[in-house]
Amino acid sequence: MPEITLLATHQLFNGEQRRYRHYSRYNQCDMTFSVYLPSRALQGYRLPVVYCLGGLTCTDENFCIKSGAQRFAAEWGIVLVMPDTSPRGTDVADANIYSLGQGAGFYVNATQQPWVQHYQMYDYVVTELPELIEKHFPVNEQRSLCGHSMGGHGALMIALKNPQRYLAVSAFAPIAHPIAGTWGQEAFTAYLGENQADWAVYDSTELITQNPPPFPILIDQGSVDEYYPAQLHPQDFVQAARFKGVNIRYHLRKDYDHSYYFVSTFIESHISFHAEAFGL
Amino acid sequence: MPEITLLATHQLFNGEQRRYRHYSRYNQCDMTFSVYLPSRALQGYRLPVVYCLGGLTCTDENFCIKSGAQRFAAEWGIVLVMPDTSPRGTDVADANIYSLGQGAGFYVNATQQPWVQHYQMYDYVVTELPELIEKHFPVNEQRSLCGHSMGGHGALMIALKNPQRYLAVSAFAPIAHPIAGTWGQEAFTAYLGENQADWAVYDSTELITQNPPPFPILIDQGSVDEYYPAQLHPQDFVQAARFKGVNIRYHLRKDYDHSYYFVSTFIESHISFHAEAFGL
Repeated sequence: MPEITLLATHQLFNGEQRRYRHYSRYNQCDMTFSVYLPSRALQGYRLPVVYCLGGLTCTDENFCIKSGAQRFAAEWGIVLVMPDTSPRGTDVADANIYSLGQGAGFYVNATQQPWVQHYQMYDYVVTELPELIEKHFPVNEQRSLCGHSMGGHGALMIALKNPQRYLAVSAFAPIAHPIAGTWGQEAFTAYLGENQADWAVYDSTELITQNPPPFPILIDQGSVDEYYPAQLHPQDFVQAARFKGVNIRYHLRKDYDHSYYFVSTFIESHISFHAEAFGL
Repeated sequence: MPEITLLATHQLFNGEQRRYRHYSRYNQCDMTFSVYLPSRALQGYRLPVVYCLGGLTCTDENFCIKSGAQRFAAEWGIVLVMPDTSPRGTDVADANIYSLGQGAGFYVNATQQPWVQHYQMYDYVVTELPELIEKHFPVNEQRSLCGHSMGGHGALMIALKNPQRYLAVSAFAPIAHPIAGTWGQEAFTAYLGENQADWAVYDSTELITQNPPPFPILIDQGSVDEYYPAQLHPQDFVQAARFKGVNIRYHLRKDYDHSYYFVSTFIESHISFHAEAFGL
């Protein structure tokens, strides 16, 4: 068995959009991910990577199809990697709500039944997927994170817990203080149990207060986002970051909502932000 | 009852992406369409319109979500209108294949049972929808057409049959000679009957031979498109156009396929082409 299996490839902005399946040793199931390789990567140059994390209900494909990021990744010479948002399959635990279970892994390592066997998305995104990417694709060791909504939570949280591994992080409408909203509270109760001390290690607002990072942070938030502020609380995160002197840019975008139309409007500035952090 | 009912609106590139429902007198059913209004339209300036026609299986939303056209429509100050590709509903005739019936109207006026009652997409796109758009939105009388696959057929065919109404037409992987491929043959047989003389009036290669247009034409085609050339035959159309001295640009794009990834790669050049035709 090959370690990764190519499912589809499409020429895109003179590079290639590809989708792969592989067996995840952390999640103990088959996983899919997508990758965008600019032409310079296809020529063999080792390029930096932005890991792009999706939100609730998304697979790896939503960001690929809707964000428009590849146009700018092609211009700058940046590889994009889009993971799925959870383990999948008929043998994988699930719930009847969109904010828990398949499509809603919240980028944590579950400790509770019935989630513990497959829901190890933190280790998957931090360790397993970068190992695969760095083994099979022409990338260098410059990494950053970008995410939308639940993926914005994942991007901020993972970067803050691993400041030595990432050069920047950006987020669109992130769940920036998950322990303060019902999405985060319900997911963390299910995956991590009732002890709120176990939630704090995955809460970006808690993390940035305890350990302000050396890298820059960019956040965009739509002013008419239907989940703002109750589920997202970016202002809590930004206040904590500024109090600690972190290099953070925060834009409240008038009249924008939570959709990928919002993401696609500002994705150019996010990819440029990552390019700057990579020294391109 | 209002003539058009707003279903959704999203801020996008400082303008608005909106979706509407209305009752179509030609198709005798409710129809949906989408429209992108740049900020200058929201300020009340009357702008030119590109009608963007979708392909087989698409609704009005595929082009909205996947093409990336709005970024450039916003820059140029162009309104985009995306119609659905057929009538819809449980009372509307359908077929068990993706290339006929709902999602596959082929932009013709059906004359045969069971299609004749609802499948009047030619009159809908040429007459009814522009009347609605010009009544309800800040547009001027500058119109053009763009389409993908079956929508490329629709765009070329409608422009060629109405050269006084349109200033330009562009297409991605159009079904440019439908009477020469099985998609077109099967659809025209169903909608128009067995008499092939009735097909020719909707065949772009036949039309351009008989009546070469005064407006410019732009076509992009992917070289590894899975439907090229058997269903599409752009080379027949281009040869006929060049023989007649038509202003046509044709690009065979190496390694690109039939998907919206291909469309999104070249949409910027198409919107610029329309802008030039509008004198922007």
